[in-house]
Amino acid sequence: MKNLLVQKYGGTSVGSTDKIKNVAEKIVSEKRNGKHLIVVVSAMGDTTDRLVDLAHEINANPSPREMDVLLSTGEQISISLLAMAIELLGEKVISLTGPQVGMHTSSVHKRARITGVDDKRVINELKENKIVIVAGFQGLDENRDITTLGRGGSDTSAVAIAAGLDADKCEIYTDVDGVYTADPRIVADAQKLNKVSYTEVLEMASLGAGVLHPRSVELAQKYNIPLVVRSSFNHENEGTIITTDESMETAVVKGIALDQDIGKISIMEVPDRPGIAYKLFSMLAAGNIHIDMIVQNTNRAAVNDISFTVADDELQDALDISQKFAFDVGAQKVEFDKGVSKLSIIGTGIVANPEISSRFFETLYNLGVNIHTISTSEIKISVLLDKHLAKKAMIAVHNAFELNQ
Amino acid sequence: MKNLLVQKYGGTSVGSTDKIKNVAEKIVSEKRNGKHLIVVVSAMGDTTDRLVDLAHEINANPSPREMDVLLSTGEQISISLLAMAIELLGEKVISLTGPQVGMHTSSVHKRARITGVDDKRVINELKENKIVIVAGFQGLDENRDITTLGRGGSDTSAVAIAAGLDADKCEIYTDVDGVYTADPRIVADAQKLNKVSYTEVLEMASLGAGVLHPRSVELAQKYNIPLVVRSSFNHENEGTIITTDESMETAVVKGIALDQDIGKISIMEVPDRPGIAYKLFSMLAAGNIHIDMIVQNTNRAAVNDISFTVADDELQDALDISQKFAFDVGAQKVEFDKGVSKLSIIGTGIVANPEISSRFFETLYNLGVNIHTISTSEIKISVLLDKHLAKKAMIAVHNAFELNQ
Repeated sequence: MKNLLVQKYGGTSVGSTDKIKNVAEKIVSEKRNGKHLIVVVSAMGDTTDRLVDLAHEINANPSPREMDVLLSTGEQISISLLAMAIELLGEKVISLTGPQVGMHTSSVHKRARITGVDDKRVINELKENKIVIVAGFQGLDENRDITTLGRGGSDTSAVAIAAGLDADKCEIYTDVDGVYTADPRIVADAQKLNKVSYTEVLEMASLGAGVLHPRSVELAQKYNIPLVVRSSFNHENEGTIITTDESMETAVVKGIALDQDIGKISIMEVPDRPGIAYKLFSMLAAGNIHIDMIVQNTNRAAVNDISFTVADDELQDALDISQKFAFDVGAQKVEFDKGVSKLSIIGTGIVANPEISSRFFETLYNLGVNIHTISTSEIKISVLLDKHLAKKAMIAVHNAFELNQ
Repeated sequence: MKNLLVQKYGGTSVGSTDKIKNVAEKIVSEKRNGKHLIVVVSAMGDTTDRLVDLAHEINANPSPREMDVLLSTGEQISISLLAMAIELLGEKVISLTGPQVGMHTSSVHKRARITGVDDKRVINELKENKIVIVAGFQGLDENRDITTLGRGGSDTSAVAIAAGLDADKCEIYTDVDGVYTADPRIVADAQKLNKVSYTEVLEMASLGAGVLHPRSVELAQKYNIPLVVRSSFNHENEGTIITTDESMETAVVKGIALDQDIGKISIMEVPDRPGIAYKLFSMLAAGNIHIDMIVQNTNRAAVNDISFTVADDELQDALDISQKFAFDVGAQKVEFDKGVSKLSIIGTGIVANPEISSRFFETLYNLGVNIHTISTSEIKISVLLDKHLAKKAMIAVHNAFELNQ
């Protein structure tokens, strides 16, 4: 649809009735600029937490289906209140729940995947010149049961609608000004990026820079919808535009990401047989463990050391599975390390630029940082290092690539 | 469906997580008696009031459509919590919102009428041996917009489902033990009725005895579904069964109803022309005024006095319309009286029994009560009397018909 803008406001942006009124004013002024507007909203502030507490007063382990029935009320409250605030300002408006908007999903409750958007209703309402307010985070499965989308769900709802209706762009309003060269809580002089590519921001998100959930970025990339991340409190700031790479040839470090909550597991002296790594990683996958960096070193003839990293909160489960694997295949021992962090530099094409990687390693060397493991992709170089040096290293690397300017 | 029981629990019955757990235990024990069970639930305690307050913080006059989106979350929360409580007790259960249950309604938001129940989903769930928990008070109109049913809505939802699935009976759990011969707050020795007819309870409800909303009783009568009103806190008490009259010939006073909040309007010296009463009452109907008793007295040649009663809260609007009417047709003046109440005796066939009406009037005469107006139907005799004498008269009439025994 021509001249269509999709906006998404998170829970803090609609955390009180006063904030809802502010958001309504912002929406109405955008509408009066002549735009078609779809606005996706999350539940107000701590509503979801309060609903979870209520459920747990009754049942410590309720079924995911019923949790979804319960939790989806949070967004339904915020869409109706936002619509009422817009009514007061004199614009035509309609709120639609996930089911009403035709947000079809898989049946995996609490973390359903969007399978399609049936956009007839939305288009009809837009044609009647209404602002359409949509409940994020929720949908309907093929049994017409209510589902929720899990982490990053509302962002993903917004992008899915923007993609389905071919919007000009999708603006994600949040409590930060945009995507930064590094986490400003660690690197005080981190700079806001005006522009970054989907791939770059994906690496930043999955590496702990965390402004946007990877799901929403992947979807935006797939349908080539420009994403804008901006603050709902600071209207002056235009945020960060996330689009496709336009200049593949310039290799520049765009950002530094740090993931501090890493656990490393090493399985020592694994017999070198075909399919043995496959066996380990399929056992871990069956245990729903998400593996990140994998390194396999040939130690001496016929045995290997296999190391990999997992998120801190999956370390215990991963260790249990690794012990079982080691016993099964006759490996010598399993070691783990909770004291590591992962530091990454991100930028399209940087791996192909030896000057960049050498500056990265030189900076770490000068700090006396011991690198446990290195892994690379087209657009990032990651190292595993001691946790207690991680923040210091991050600031030094940020300076080394002049990202503070 | 054979062996099907529909139960409805009101807001006070599910007013806290502990009460929800109690209700769940009751439901599960009924289920283990071998019943198919559908349970209709209202919003928890004061949830609806809190949602209304939230809306009014934003907009003093929100659209009915958006209010319905907001208010329907109340029942959605209680159905999911009740389902979770039943899961904990080990029975199969599923919660369904009004839209999911196929509760089709008119499009009049905030007071929609049920147009039909699409019961396929419910039947499938019952066949899988699940207890089905249904959100009362809400439905879906032909645009797939969420509607709410207004006053008495959850009772009506329950009866509509019971009718659609041909249930054995529909139990309405509330905070009273059943239908009483009179309001126990006024008549201390009022007795609980074990059995009463639809028609009788309809008269009691519409005359202010108010346990059940007339809508739900009318629907139960239409589909001949036995209704049971009973307490959700006192399981020993079997409540009151409401069915068809079985003994048309015995004229007995079943109950005394009092409506204290009555306004009376009299239009004096209305010219006696054909169609003039029609003009008045169509003007009032157009103003959405609900008229109750109507009396027309011929005063002298060619002019009439017309009196009627309305609910207290519609008196102001009714007066405005009456003044306009009086001016249009050349009536002499409009008077109103806020100090009247309506007292009624109810029982099938009582009008045809002169002994009953004479005992009624004799009792009032002995008390020195001045009767303003009398109206009768097949099963009730109502009088309009001074408000300050109304409670005293009610107690005396209750005694006169030996309802206290």
